[in-house]
Amino acid sequence: MSDRGLTHIDPLGRARMVDVTPKEATHRRAIARCKVFMLPETTSKVASNAMSKGDVLGAARIAGIQAAKRTAEMIPLCHPLLVGSVAINFDIRDDYVEVEAQVETVDRTGVEMEALTACAIASLTIYDMCKSADRSMTIGELALWEKTGGRSGVWRRPA
Amino acid sequence: MSDRGLTHIDPLGRARMVDVTPKEATHRRAIARCKVFMLPETTSKVASNAMSKGDVLGAARIAGIQAAKRTAEMIPLCHPLLVGSVAINFDIRDDYVEVEAQVETVDRTGVEMEALTACAIASLTIYDMCKSADRSMTIGELALWEKTGGRSGVWRRPA
Amino acid sequence: MSDRGLTHIDPLGRARMVDVTPKEATHRRAIARCKVFMLPETTSKVASNAMSKGDVLGAARIAGIQAAKRTAEMIPLCHPLLVGSVAINFDIRDDYVEVEAQVETVDRTGVEMEALTACAIASLTIYDMCKSADRSMTIGELALWEKTGGRSGVWRRPA
Amino acid sequence: MSDRGLTHIDPLGRARMVDVTPKEATHRRAIARCKVFMLPETTSKVASNAMSKGDVLGAARIAGIQAAKRTAEMIPLCHPLLVGSVAINFDIRDDYVEVEAQVETVDRTGVEMEALTACAIASLTIYDMCKSADRSMTIGELALWEKTGGRSGVWRRPA
Amino acid sequence: MSDRGLTHIDPLGRARMVDVTPKEATHRRAIARCKVFMLPETTSKVASNAMSKGDVLGAARIAGIQAAKRTAEMIPLCHPLLVGSVAINFDIRDDYVEVEAQVETVDRTGVEMEALTACAIASLTIYDMCKSADRSMTIGELALWEKTGGRSGVWRRPA
Amino acid sequence: MSDRGLTHIDPLGRARMVDVTPKEATHRRAIARCKVFMLPETTSKVASNAMSKGDVLGAARIAGIQAAKRTAEMIPLCHPLLVGSVAINFDIRDDYVEVEAQVETVDRTGVEMEALTACAIASLTIYDMCKSADRSMTIGELALWEKTGGRSGVWRRPA
Repeated sequence: MSDRGLTHIDPLGRARMVDVTPKEATHRRAIARCKVFMLPETTSKVASNAMSKGDVLGAARIAGIQAAKRTAEMIPLCHPLLVGSVAINFDIRDDYVEVEAQVETVDRTGVEMEALTACAIASLTIYDMCKSADRSMTIGELALWEKTGGRSGVWRRPA
Repeated sequence: MSDRGLTHIDPLGRARMVDVTPKEATHRRAIARCKVFMLPETTSKVASNAMSKGDVLGAARIAGIQAAKRTAEMIPLCHPLLVGSVAINFDIRDDYVEVEAQVETVDRTGVEMEALTACAIASLTIYDMCKSADRSMTIGELALWEKTGGRSGVWRRPA
Repeated sequence: MSDRGLTHIDPLGRARMVDVTPKEATHRRAIARCKVFMLPETTSKVASNAMSKGDVLGAARIAGIQAAKRTAEMIPLCHPLLVGSVAINFDIRDDYVEVEAQVETVDRTGVEMEALTACAIASLTIYDMCKSADRSMTIGELALWEKTGGRSGVWRRPA
Repeated sequence: MSDRGLTHIDPLGRARMVDVTPKEATHRRAIARCKVFMLPETTSKVASNAMSKGDVLGAARIAGIQAAKRTAEMIPLCHPLLVGSVAINFDIRDDYVEVEAQVETVDRTGVEMEALTACAIASLTIYDMCKSADRSMTIGELALWEKTGGRSGVWRRPA
Repeated sequence: MSDRGLTHIDPLGRARMVDVTPKEATHRRAIARCKVFMLPETTSKVASNAMSKGDVLGAARIAGIQAAKRTAEMIPLCHPLLVGSVAINFDIRDDYVEVEAQVETVDRTGVEMEALTACAIASLTIYDMCKSADRSMTIGELALWEKTGGRSGVWRRPA
Repeated sequence: MSDRGLTHIDPLGRARMVDVTPKEATHRRAIARCKVFMLPETTSKVASNAMSKGDVLGAARIAGIQAAKRTAEMIPLCHPLLVGSVAINFDIRDDYVEVEAQVETVDRTGVEMEALTACAIASLTIYDMCKSADRSMTIGELALWEKTGGRSGVWRRPA
């Protein structure tokens, strides 16, 4: 088309998946976290595995792992990659459950979006399994905490 | 198996998708919102469509709509349903972009998880398209705001 | 948001999935066709099942049926629906293979996109299985030929 | 095409998804079972949740539920439908784990394939999580045990 | 099986995914194009972003990018690969919109099918968003224009 | 989280995808088999391509190939990988059809689960296409027969 005078309709605003083919495949890791805020009665039920829909954190862990693998299907400009490991952990506090996802790969592009998406989907699974017991829940503070590998080296969120 | 003395290994903790077949198909709607917190320079670039990866809100809208349709694939115990409409809107403020998803259907089960998942994936798309410009971003305040239809009638989040 | 002065950034240009919940579920059918143009030697090999990658039309038929079921995953504003039947047929001519897809459902929205997508994916499957033998192939004349059901009744493409 | 003398290349052998649109939507249920044969040491580890890859039956249950929802994506001529409930249970015996899946819906077509697919994927998940400990495993006796609803009424596998 | 006298039922006609494991991973690129033919009034509306369903080309671009990533899910014998970049461009003329997809990767197999599938799905998205305004539309001239990398080097469609 | 005293709720039972990033990418192959037991009349119909739903083995072959590519979507802790070749073969005997899947790749992790999943889904496809003719069918003896590549070298199931 370029040879026939293609009118670039939207030279700046057009979405495109940036080219990562010149990059080298290196080991990359990302850690993301978020919180599911809920009533203290709800965190108790989650902790004692007493929620009627079943093992909340077990299901959330599987959902998060599965989501990490399929991130590029969901996020339009995210590069597909093969995750090499995914671990999801939980910290139950008085009025929230903290979700942490750690993802690793050896690839040309980082796993930041995979870790964040795993956190989001694990949190939504917790929400789904607790929602009949607690309508006050919100999900917040979803953020990247660490990112290593690639040209930019190590990055950690300032405390 | 019940006739042969099945040992129910985990009578309480076992995950199951609750039966909605006795419910009636009625019109249902849900509205969810969340915020992508970012630097004022970043909201400006989003507003003026100046982000190098392309039209941020256009891509986020499509991603959110697509995610609403596939919610049950991501959230393990969420019932599959056919969404009848999805609308995603944005409100750009000084230091955040608010995302709102409204989903409607006629089905035996509500669309709360679809609206929340649409918000989450639209927000992650915004994050993905702005992350090379702003490392401070976080996603928060993801919550249900309205839910109508089904036995429980109309529910609105208290202001 | 509307109650708090939401700035509708793109009142006209914003993508949304139009609401079909007020529509009635009726029987709907659509027929689409397209052509895969190829060398006469290639149509001969397809007809005699002599292509090295295997049974071209058998694979294309399965691919088209599977694509019809997943159309709404691929086409952003297309409503999800449950296809009730899909049939894919082929007509081998001298220098093309014609593909025809017929899709039926009982739903609030039509199956036009499902029939067109089934044709496109079946054609691409034919292309994929013949491409090592014939680099001249093109796919063309993809069009809707018939559409029945819903408010607009019966429509047929003028001859 | 029929009006232009379409050569039906394969009048009998051609795959097609049979039309269910004339059928009535009724309540349907199916129960399927299968067995994962393994060493007694392996069943012990599964029972005591001592497998290094994590909670085997918890993960298998989620995998089976998710597979039931996506059966029509995997089985080419299977009609898509919306499952209304899925329950997966396990019975740990000396040298095998029995998997049972029960699926219900209100639709024009039955849930036999959904129950069988849920069993198969749950069994493969058990296999995957135990395979580093036991190379002798096989999966067998996958069968339908009960099917109710639709024109054919109630069917039970003869004892 | 071969050691036990397997009857190869269909020695020639059987579909199989050819082995690419002996190939080397090299940089590969493909460019495909097609046209969505429509009324001049319709191209005008697309160009001025006046279509009621929203930003047609923005949605088509995202749909095409997403389709490129999932090509191997749709085309049965197509090898899965990780696309490294995807760009979709449009050229609006009097009575058609031309769609161009360029895909790159570093892999053992080419991205020809990814570029063609991206064009097809982007075109179907344009069709879907304009179909309420214009029933005359057809999609045609879908073809590969350039292919580089791998053993066969550079290939360009003769003008 | 580790820096703030994360309570590891389930130190042993928690599911996680083990890290394969330190492993080397090598050529790997796996062969799995299973049997679909059916009435002799049914095997005859399959062999003579006389089943009303169409070409049973042709459809099962495509379904098995497609399932091999998507194994990691279905099996929660299975690593995603890019299959390099998939071949599905059948052996029709008096009262069963044997299914064999051979999968190859060059990756950090083996293709055992891909071969088993391909067998399972191909078998379920055979079942689905024959079930209206034969209610006695069962699927059994699904097992790995050969596995080569990686640290553990060559493994063959003892006869």
